[in-house]
Amino acid sequence: MRALVLTDDGVRLETDRANPVAAAGEVRVRVLRAGICETDLQLLRGYKGFRGVLGHEFVGVALDGVFEGQRVTGEINCSCWACERCHAGRPGHCPHRTVLGILDHDGAFADSIAVPERNLHLVPDTVDTDSAVFTEPLAAAYQIPTQLAIGKSDQIIVLGDGRLGNLCAQVLASMSDHVLVIGKHPNKLRMLDALGIETRLLMDRPPHGAADIVVDCTGSESGLTTALDLVRPRGTIVLKTTIAGTQTLSLAPVVVDEITIVGSRCGPFNRALDALAGGLVDVKTLITDRFDLSDGVRALQRAGESGVLKVLLCAADHL
Amino acid sequence: MRALVLTDDGVRLETDRANPVAAAGEVRVRVLRAGICETDLQLLRGYKGFRGVLGHEFVGVALDGVFEGQRVTGEINCSCWACERCHAGRPGHCPHRTVLGILDHDGAFADSIAVPERNLHLVPDTVDTDSAVFTEPLAAAYQIPTQLAIGKSDQIIVLGDGRLGNLCAQVLASMSDHVLVIGKHPNKLRMLDALGIETRLLMDRPPHGAADIVVDCTGSESGLTTALDLVRPRGTIVLKTTIAGTQTLSLAPVVVDEITIVGSRCGPFNRALDALAGGLVDVKTLITDRFDLSDGVRALQRAGESGVLKVLLCAADHL
Repeated sequence: MRALVLTDDGVRLETDRANPVAAAGEVRVRVLRAGICETDLQLLRGYKGFRGVLGHEFVGVALDGVFEGQRVTGEINCSCWACERCHAGRPGHCPHRTVLGILDHDGAFADSIAVPERNLHLVPDTVDTDSAVFTEPLAAAYQIPTQLAIGKSDQIIVLGDGRLGNLCAQVLASMSDHVLVIGKHPNKLRMLDALGIETRLLMDRPPHGAADIVVDCTGSESGLTTALDLVRPRGTIVLKTTIAGTQTLSLAPVVVDEITIVGSRCGPFNRALDALAGGLVDVKTLITDRFDLSDGVRALQRAGESGVLKVLLCAADHL
Repeated sequence: MRALVLTDDGVRLETDRANPVAAAGEVRVRVLRAGICETDLQLLRGYKGFRGVLGHEFVGVALDGVFEGQRVTGEINCSCWACERCHAGRPGHCPHRTVLGILDHDGAFADSIAVPERNLHLVPDTVDTDSAVFTEPLAAAYQIPTQLAIGKSDQIIVLGDGRLGNLCAQVLASMSDHVLVIGKHPNKLRMLDALGIETRLLMDRPPHGAADIVVDCTGSESGLTTALDLVRPRGTIVLKTTIAGTQTLSLAPVVVDEITIVGSRCGPFNRALDALAGGLVDVKTLITDRFDLSDGVRALQRAGESGVLKVLLCAADHL
């Protein structure tokens, strides 16, 4: 089969890679569509030292198991379900886990992928395949309200107008009347304006301490420092940005202003699929470009270009 | 009067400094005893660029006002009580505040100090003057349970066996059965052992992810990185350490493991005074040394030496 493989020499398309073999509890899924995410671009830069087939946002058709022949999407953490952490209700943090396309498990930028069956979610008939690719990043946005209470009057700033910032802003704007997105790209901010969400360019940002909650979706080293400037004393910063390697910053304001920083990662797929089925979130305008899997290397380059939002890979013969 | 003054040329004893003038709402307090804190040592190294009389942990006798002639201690944040933040119940974070001996307000390493009267707390007769000096740092330890719920079965690690680490450990050990202090100084750890609190040397620390809650009282740049290693996924780090300037570290684990970091600073004086009056906390064994105010420069040097816990300055003629 075809697969986009990250090797010691960079990423390349393989056309004769062996089909994945389903391990115990896994089923094979023929990939219809996959999305390129900021994490994929970080992996290309060395984050986590991953080697193998990239890709963790996908929709496909199950080739066996209870969902055989139906469209599915899948949670990315493959947990052991046997250890103390899994039993404590934190399977996403299982120390023995693999992660699709990120950690010791081949991913979805391929014609097919093997996924633990319990990770799969049926895609409702009312959700088209392009939209369903956004289930994983949208779930990550819905993780925020599982971690902290969001009130109608909370002043919320989302830093970053990219893919994840857009989704987080849409989710939070359904919970608070005061969501402001701060970004660097007028074209991306205009898309949020069109949804009725307030936006500003970084250079025009509000004064120090203006927000109760700041969500860092910048994917940039400077994001947390900007967030520390914008959050009020005793406010909360939600950290979505993962940086490969170290970063240098002043953390004294965290103590002096008694800030809470909450790391936030994967979220509830069922809530994301419900939102897509209910038309609560606009995702299709985020699609900037689409490529056939055979042009995957070019697609990854495109996803890293300025001004680009979501780039889709179309794997099976359903373009 | 005498005063220990931080100037552009370092710290020096002045013997002919003018007595402080009480501003509106302030009273003068004749200082009996003052404590040297890690923050004082940070200020000497340039933290916050403070210039003026150092000192914010003190007990004295009020020279006027409702407490005239009685022993008092005082909260350190001098707030405006008029702005939005003060009205929102966060006077400790008032943007117009001064802070005794730390920010635009002369401190307590002097024969007398001027303090807003509403900052003062009467020292109960059952609490001796040496113990009452610990009210401010003990209140900082009691801030932790105001910020997060502490349960009997929570696995808590306190990083740092210094002054604040000791007090935090004592406070938390009254709330959880599983408090472990990790430090570098066998003599300081033995003091905690004697109180029935489990201790370990840093080199013998528990494995990755062992703690539900880690409190960083190291005062060191490496503290947060160690805390990130010791806390379990979805656990909480309480950050007490303030570092002057920037620090370099990897924050990806905060996101990947969904850690919550809570900055923690000043706390409730009434709870600390109650604990001192009730004999719930042992503070006097923390006193390593005491100096007359006239030997204050030497006292500051002593406080920075390895193995030293609390150094007291004795200002008035009550040695």
